[in-house]
Amino acid sequence: MRVLFIGGGRITGTILKELETSIERAYIYDKMNVNHLKDRYHFVKILKDFNIPNDVECVVEAASIEAVKEYSEEVLKSGKDYVILSSGAFANIDFLTAFMELLETSEGRVFIPSGAIGGLDVVVALSKWIESIDLITRKSPQSLGCSVEEETEIFSGSVLEAIERFPKNINVAVTLALAAKSFEKVRVKIIASPGLKFNEHNLRILSRMGEYEFILRNKPLENQRTSLLAALSTVATLRRLKEKFVVGV
Amino acid sequence: MRVLFIGGGRITGTILKELETSIERAYIYDKMNVNHLKDRYHFVKILKDFNIPNDVECVVEAASIEAVKEYSEEVLKSGKDYVILSSGAFANIDFLTAFMELLETSEGRVFIPSGAIGGLDVVVALSKWIESIDLITRKSPQSLGCSVEEETEIFSGSVLEAIERFPKNINVAVTLALAAKSFEKVRVKIIASPGLKFNEHNLRILSRMGEYEFILRNKPLENQRTSLLAALSTVATLRRLKEKFVVGV
Repeated sequence: MRVLFIGGGRITGTILKELETSIERAYIYDKMNVNHLKDRYHFVKILKDFNIPNDVECVVEAASIEAVKEYSEEVLKSGKDYVILSSGAFANIDFLTAFMELLETSEGRVFIPSGAIGGLDVVVALSKWIESIDLITRKSPQSLGCSVEEETEIFSGSVLEAIERFPKNINVAVTLALAAKSFEKVRVKIIASPGLKFNEHNLRILSRMGEYEFILRNKPLENQRTSLLAALSTVATLRRLKEKFVVGV
Repeated sequence: MRVLFIGGGRITGTILKELETSIERAYIYDKMNVNHLKDRYHFVKILKDFNIPNDVECVVEAASIEAVKEYSEEVLKSGKDYVILSSGAFANIDFLTAFMELLETSEGRVFIPSGAIGGLDVVVALSKWIESIDLITRKSPQSLGCSVEEETEIFSGSVLEAIERFPKNINVAVTLALAAKSFEKVRVKIIASPGLKFNEHNLRILSRMGEYEFILRNKPLENQRTSLLAALSTVATLRRLKEKFVVGV
């Protein structure tokens, strides 16, 4: 597999570690010009300027909402498959519309991994029948940029408001909305919870085909904000591009 | 889309209804020689003998464990993509091994939809780190072939025992084991519950990356045994074969 990573942070590091034996070449472009991954893996090549090498099969964005907005046009025009972690970019409806228009004529496909949540198989399968989705997220106060002594609800509202206020924390809400094909049906609560060992997501889905409740308690990466599961679900997405025996929707 | 369906029962009926506008041609092979779907959809053609027409892009098995065992060799040799609902067939390790060997040289890919459960995105992403999965399934006594007055545990054991005793009910357990890449880590409880409105699956996943609990309450199809979600997740799988914007692992 030959992959271009936009972003050379902890998520990219985790993905490289997991896919070490199946990656032939990994290009990394990071505005900060990180170099530690180049020292660790012989197959890593650092790009000084953003460009999409010809031999790349797939581009992985693991950087930021801004990076998605800045580089997507070029990626889509390249016709490469494109895996996007900072799904929050799509909360900007103008961007979403322009992106989808470009995608229509692109030869590549776009993949949004489940990220730090799960059960998207159910949400995708039932999107037509979903009445409402409630997402309650609990994270440590410091990862949310606040300081509280006890469990405190710090946000309750729509996906679009949530991503505006917590752009680094709540990509999961946008991914959910994309899976449900509706921003309106998803409601978000964010709770700062001191002393939390896990990042917790609680998902309640009402639909005409059934009712669902998913509780996820994720070990965080070192930055506390991101769950390890987000990196590992990207690994699963990349594996799946080539796998011949695929389990799950 | 041009599809061959093995099995012309309620699941195939539901899939055809959902994909009506995107199916060009649907061949149906069913040992019982069902004809009602031919009368309802102009694009349906009934096959009297099993064969895989050349123009088919994808084969969908929605019949039985026996059908998977009987026709898989021919499907894999045809090189067509292959969607399998009766995943219970893979609880036979000899069959699984022979199937995987054939798949290696096949040009097609195999897809096992999430079926009546969800959260397989998490199970697939974390398979390497999973310690245990507990599946508790509640269904109506009649669909389990028993008669009880109150909620009664009728089975507790391994996936392999479960599928042997309830071959028509517990494909979900095998799908879970395939996602987790382990039959040993999955334990199954089956509870007959009179007056149940939904088929209920409760899933607890312990892993070194986090802990997960998924509760699914599915509306059943008319036969009570099968959940509508099983058919709809197959629809999602078929759509995904062509979709350019894919959400979820």
